[in-house]
This record gives sequence, C-alpha cells and structure tokens, in this order.
Amino acid sequence: MKIKKLFIANRGEIAVRIIRAARDLGIETVQAFSTADATALAVELADHAVEIGPAPAAQSYLSGDAIIAAAKKADADAIHPGYGFLSENADFADAVTEAGLIFIGPSGDTIRLMGDKAMARQKAAEAGVPTIPGSDGVLDNLDEAADMAEAIGFPVMIKAAAGGGGRGIRIAENAEDFVKIAAEATSEAKAAFGDGRLYVEKLISNARHVEVQILGDGQRFVHCFERECSLQRRRQKLWEEAPCLALSDDMRDRLCNSAVKLAQAVGYKGAGTIEFLYDDVSRTYYFIEMNTRIQVEHPVTEAITGIDLVAEMIRIASDEPLAITQNDISVNGHAIEVRINAEDPENNFLPFPGIIDDLRVPGGIGIRFDHMLFNEYQIPPFYDSLLGKLIAYGQNREIAIKRLRRALAELRLGKNLKTTSTLLHRLSHDPDVLSGAVHVNWLEPWIKANFTRKNNETTETTGGYKHDQPI
Amino acid sequence: MKIKKLFIANRGEIAVRIIRAARDLGIETVQAFSTADATALAVELADHAVEIGPAPAAQSYLSGDAIIAAAKKADADAIHPGYGFLSENADFADAVTEAGLIFIGPSGDTIRLMGDKAMARQKAAEAGVPTIPGSDGVLDNLDEAADMAEAIGFPVMIKAAAGGGGRGIRIAENAEDFVKIAAEATSEAKAAFGDGRLYVEKLISNARHVEVQILGDGQRFVHCFERECSLQRRRQKLWEEAPCLALSDDMRDRLCNSAVKLAQAVGYKGAGTIEFLYDDVSRTYYFIEMNTRIQVEHPVTEAITGIDLVAEMIRIASDEPLAITQNDISVNGHAIEVRINAEDPENNFLPFPGIIDDLRVPGGIGIRFDHMLFNEYQIPPFYDSLLGKLIAYGQNREIAIKRLRRALAELRLGKNLKTTSTLLHRLSHDPDVLSGAVHVNWLEPWIKANFTRKNNETTETTGGYKHDQPI
Repeated sequence: MKIKKLFIANRGEIAVRIIRAARDLGIETVQAFSTADATALAVELADHAVEIGPAPAAQSYLSGDAIIAAAKKADADAIHPGYGFLSENADFADAVTEAGLIFIGPSGDTIRLMGDKAMARQKAAEAGVPTIPGSDGVLDNLDEAADMAEAIGFPVMIKAAAGGGGRGIRIAENAEDFVKIAAEATSEAKAAFGDGRLYVEKLISNARHVEVQILGDGQRFVHCFERECSLQRRRQKLWEEAPCLALSDDMRDRLCNSAVKLAQAVGYKGAGTIEFLYDDVSRTYYFIEMNTRIQVEHPVTEAITGIDLVAEMIRIASDEPLAITQNDISVNGHAIEVRINAEDPENNFLPFPGIIDDLRVPGGIGIRFDHMLFNEYQIPPFYDSLLGKLIAYGQNREIAIKRLRRALAELRLGKNLKTTSTLLHRLSHDPDVLSGAVHVNWLEPWIKANFTRKNNETTETTGGYKHDQPI
Repeated sequence: MKIKKLFIANRGEIAVRIIRAARDLGIETVQAFSTADATALAVELADHAVEIGPAPAAQSYLSGDAIIAAAKKADADAIHPGYGFLSENADFADAVTEAGLIFIGPSGDTIRLMGDKAMARQKAAEAGVPTIPGSDGVLDNLDEAADMAEAIGFPVMIKAAAGGGGRGIRIAENAEDFVKIAAEATSEAKAAFGDGRLYVEKLISNARHVEVQILGDGQRFVHCFERECSLQRRRQKLWEEAPCLALSDDMRDRLCNSAVKLAQAVGYKGAGTIEFLYDDVSRTYYFIEMNTRIQVEHPVTEAITGIDLVAEMIRIASDEPLAITQNDISVNGHAIEVRINAEDPENNFLPFPGIIDDLRVPGGIGIRFDHMLFNEYQIPPFYDSLLGKLIAYGQNREIAIKRLRRALAELRLGKNLKTTSTLLHRLSHDPDVLSGAVHVNWLEPWIKANFTRKNNETTETTGGYKHDQPI
C-alpha cells in the first residue's frame, strides 16, 4: 500500500531525517512531540505535528497507546519509530499493525526473534553464520564447564546463568585459572540467586565492531557493505566509519554474504544491521546481534553507496519490491561519522543540556551535518544527549579525515556548552585512529588518559567486550 | 613549490570555499577584506585576515597593488583570485608572478590569449574545435558580407565592427532580409562611428549553454565532463546542472574531447572552463569562450566526479603534476546548483541588501549549501548579490530535483529579505525544466510571465544568444 501520511514517533535528529526522506518521496508527515519538544525543528519541518504527552518518555515517546491513538486521529497510514524508544518493541509493532497502520520496520515476530539473543544466535548458526563459540545453554556442573572451556579455547568468559547484563562476568586465561574462577562464580551465584549454573563463552578481546547494513523486502536481500564502529565508550559509539579498514576484499565478501544469509534465513523485511565482532589477528568474525531498525550511523553507508536508507525502508514497508540489486551497490570513497553530544568529556561525560546560542553549521565539499538545532534552541534535559552527527566523506580516508577536522573546527554550538566536539577533534589526530589500529576496548583507556580531570577520576574498569548488552 | 600560506584576494562564498580547500590541504590562509567585509565569515574562518582598503572594489578587491603589497607583508607565497574581480586580469597575474608570488591560475599570457575573443576563436579553430561560422575578420563591403551570409547559412547576425558588446546586433532570416538589414547597419555605423564595416556570424538560436570543466598542468590535460547552464537571466546563470540532459554519450565524448584539445593547444595550466553553445536540433556544438578561473557553478562537477576542483587548482599552481588521469574520472549521479541571490524577482531583480536575521541552513542527504552567512549578518550593498549556492545531488536527476525542492523549502534567511529562492522553487516545478526542454533564451520570457509585477514591466527584449558578452 502506498503510504500517503507518515506519523513520526521519535524526536531529535532522526525525526528530521525521516521528514526529509518522506518529503523526497512525496509523503505527508505528522510529527509526534512531547510537551518538552513543542518548539523542536522536526515540529517546524513536518507538515503537521501533534502533542502526545508530557516530557518523561514513558508518557510520550514510549507510550505505544498514545502514539497509535494520535496517528489514527491524524489520519496517518504508517508509523516510523526511528531508533531507540519503541523501535525494537515487538508488541508495539504488532499493535501498530493491528490498528490497521503500517509499521516502518520488520514484523513484530522478526523483532521478537532477533531481540532474543539466544534465538538470534541459534538462527545465525543454522544459517551458517559464525557465532562466538560457547555453551549453547547453561552448564550444570563445573566439570562440564571445564570441558567446554577447553573445547573452545582460552581465554573464556564465565557468566552466571542467573546474573543479568554484563554483571558477574569473569575471565579465565587458562585451564588452571578456570577451575578456581568457575568455582568462585558458581558458589557466589548459588549464594546470591540460589542458582549456580554457568555459561562459558570464548572471550574475543580487542576485536573490532563491524556491522553490515542489510535491506530486504522479504523476498530479495542485499547488503550495503559494512561499517566499523569500534570507537565506543560504555557501548556508546562515538565514531563510525565505512568501509572497515581491517577487511580484505575477500573477508568483506564473506562477512557481508554471511549477513545476507541471516537476513534471508529470517525472511527479513526492512532495513537492518547485523553486528559482528571481527578479530583481525585470527581473521575471524562472529555474529553478535541484529538490530531491526535504522541505526544512528546509517549516513556513512549512504555516503559511500549513494542509497537513501530511510527512503528504502519506507518503500519496503509500502510493499514495493526492492528495486536495488546487489550489483547496483558499490563502495565509492570513505565516510566517517562522529557524534556531537551535549556531554562534558572532562567531567565523566555528564550530560550538559544548555542553550544553542552560537550556532555555526559546518559545510562545504564532503560535509553533511544531520542535526535538530537552531539558534536559541534550549536542549531539553529529558532525552539522550545527541545533538547532531557530523559526516565527512572523501574519495579516500585521508581526505575524509581532513574534511572532518575542518568541519569540527567550523562547528559552533553554544558559548557555554560542553560537547564531545573537542574530544572528537583530538581523536581525529590520534596516531592509532589515523592508522586504524583500534578495537572495541581502545577508546575508554584513551579517554581516561586524555580527558579525565586529574582530581575527578572515574572508577569504572574496562574488561573484555561484553557483547551481551545492546549497543 | 609547495604553498605554505595562501592569500585570498576575494570575498563572499568563494573565499570560504577557498579557505576550506586550503585547510584540507594543510595550507595556512590569509583573508583579504575591505572595510565593509570586516566581520565576514571568511575573515573569521581564515587563519589570518588583513584589511586591503575601503568598500568600493576599485580600492580593495580590484586594487592589484594593494593586494600584492598585503600578500607580501603577510608573508604569503601565493594568491588565489577566486572568480570575478582580478581573476581574469592578465596584468595582475603577471604582477603577482613578478612580485615572486604564485598566482593560482594560468599564466598572464594564457589569460591574455583566451581573454581576446578573436584570438581564442582562432586558437580553437586551429585545434579543430568547432567555432560559430562567420567572418573571421571585418567585412569591407556589402557584397562580401552577403556572400559570407550565404556561405554560413541563415539566420545570421550582423554586427557593426565599431560597435561594442551586444549593441547594434541585427538578425537576418534570409538573403532578401540580409540585403536590406546589412545596408541599414553599415550606413548607421558609418554615421555613428565613421566606420561601416561589419561582422557576420551564424545565429545559433535557442541553443543550450554547455561548458566543459578542464584541469591541466601544462603537460597533462583532463576534462571533468560538462555542465549545462542554459537557465540564464541577462547572462547571469541561475540554475546549473551536470551532466547535460541533451547529450548522447557519443556527443558528450566529442564535446569533452574538443575541450581537452583546446586546453592542450594552449598548454593550459590550472582549472578552466571551455564554454560551448549546443544546438540539439542540428546536434552541433560551437566554442564560445574559455574562462581561465574557477567558476561559480564548479560544485556540480565536484558532486558528480568527487574531485575537489579548488584543491586541484592549488596543487597545479604548486607545480605538482596532475595526479588524476582521464580514466580516474567518471560521472556518478546528477547534481543541480541554484543561486540564492539577494534580489527581488518581482521588482526587476533589484538588489535587496538586508539582514540575515532568520538563518536556517538546509541539510540532509544530498545537500550542500556553499554560502558566507551567519545570523545577524548584514549584507553589504557594495558587491554582487550572491548569498549562497544550493547544490542538490542524487543518483539521478529526479532525486536531485526532489532534494533541491526540499532544501529550498528548508532554507530561511531573513524575515524581510527578498531572494531568488521562491523563483527557484517555482522553476523546480516547471514542466520544461523537469523535461529539460530549455535553452539560453528560455528563462527570460518565463520570468516575465511568472515573476513580473503587472504594473512594473521591464522593457528589455530578448533576441538570439549574444555570445560576445561575458557570461
């Protein structure tokens, strides 16, 4: 069904991004906004705008009922969830469909399947996509665990089955360590949760985060090559680029084809991202998870392929057959995106919601700045701190980096505002970043060494890559 | 010689453009400014800035002596003239070189040669590049003129040798007309100037303006394909695009190779543009003139080829051999540039220097806005009215046009400012523009029909394409 009126259930730069795609497609837009976002740029740019509730997201951008009711009332025929908020909420996707509206994304069932890490891992394995070696289920006793650890090879991660998230993860470097650490882990877990069962998984240290952009219409599936997003702080990406420096053409082919296979295996319909860890010592890649929505860093892929990913996902949701074939897609040049966040890097990245009283938008050849700012914009304190994404493009990486530095130097936001901009500028001059010798555990120590106030040190520690948390 | 410090002898958006290229190349910049431009964006963005004189351009941007003295004093080793002002002044280029500085552009001799229309035409003919059929010199009597007219074919233009510019041009549609009109022309010219000699030239009506971007280092010469700039008002281009819709691949090859031949014939060193008229009825192209500088519309070529033309011209002037070969250059997608001028289209394009008090820079996928604006910028009344150039790029022309419309809709400049923006928006919806059925005489009648206030009609008439005036 051709979409005529699109309801945007998100805010900030991604709302602006979706409005632009819709406008290019000739689709009318209705922007949802919370009371705190009444003067937002997206509200101004959309054809219509409706208030959906008060500032706390739970009562507005996270309230599926309020959003569906508002979309119906506005006579919209589709809802775009953006990223974050309800974008990967399977029940919301189902509710949208049940309300007779089009959800811009895959079906609730696909979201549910890929949202369940164990199920997703199993699907990947079935499709022949490499997954991280480990116990497929919980291990009942220490002997079984020791055998598993030996089989997958050290170092390994040991996790309590009853623990959640990244908590309680221990690392064993060899068999001797393992006996001791696993015994501790199981007895602690028994004491804390009454459940001493363990997971064991191969520890992939200092790997790269490489993800593949996928488009599928349920029948046809293509990849739009990969992005490398290894520069992360607390699982938040700060710098993303495409293509990945570390891949040979052959490895790129294998990785991207693995992603297509998985998309195919689940009959994927929409734009999605399949995330991998890539270990460039052993030249091995492992599936981590799939994100069933548009990602913050999608513009780097747009820059090197020329494809409007947001427009494509809207077309797919309208049941248009995917018009792009794999042969149409090629990589042209290099692109880097950095995230301009209203945070103080010298003060443990404390959010810094201030006023945009000195806006200077960078521009010129090779520069795109996706943002939701205007002069005198007051950043509301209720949401994430992303102000904009600066994307630099060039015929090669060197040119992209020079343009990135130039644009960061031109960027002005607020007279008293603290942002990640200076940190990003410094990163763009770092020898490891320039040579590409980075991995997922590279950025945090770098920040500690370069951006922590001496008498205000953070106490967190960094360990192996904890891939069971969302990124 | 490697350039370390570049002096920018221009203002406005092109000064900003040059600063960006220099920064990407790691070259320090010194921005020249008149008293009226003390707060300009280029002054802020450059590493250094020096005042060169009062507002009237004759005493600042057109004062070669003041510029060279300031560049020497600032310890610059090169001068970029931009476009307009002294950019095609051969004596200035010579003086820069004599002062021991690098002129970013071809030699004074090349500028002189191509600046002389008759010499340039002769050079083109010698190089086998088609020129407009006509009398190579003045014709002494009416019989000779009539023979010439017959030989080149009607319609023809008749011009008095003693007349200047586009004045006194007459058109004869056939031999009978010619006898009468030529007799009138010669006797009028005799009476007015005491010189009745005439030129006769084939009239190319309703042709397209197609120009080829050239790069040469004196030894190696490449073209970066063509731009079509047929939408002009009083020889001022308002809408430029690349590639040209009307050319077959074969015709494109021939046209672009003709341009390379001419560049080769003059041993061209720099970035240049070779302008042609293209008659798509007879499928013939004719050399008009060469511009020996960077052009306003260069970004459309950058968008479809990925080449930074300003960086290339700086490299060439530093005596770096041209690193790009013809095989490296290909066309990718389609780009359109429109000129945002501070002029009132409803009032005969009267310049409208006002204040930028409501700036909203358009952005998103496929949009570049090259400008020199910031909030509270007061447009000085002394210079041309160009505020910025909006460039829309897409994988095809349809996408580029949709993005152009979107960006024009997003653009905000000043609450009370009149600009060409609404005119351009209307143009982007015109059926002839959409189908590409335009030519150099298309825009003026369109403006008259769509944008002239009823009780304030302009009285100018439009005739054949008067290609002897600079464009």
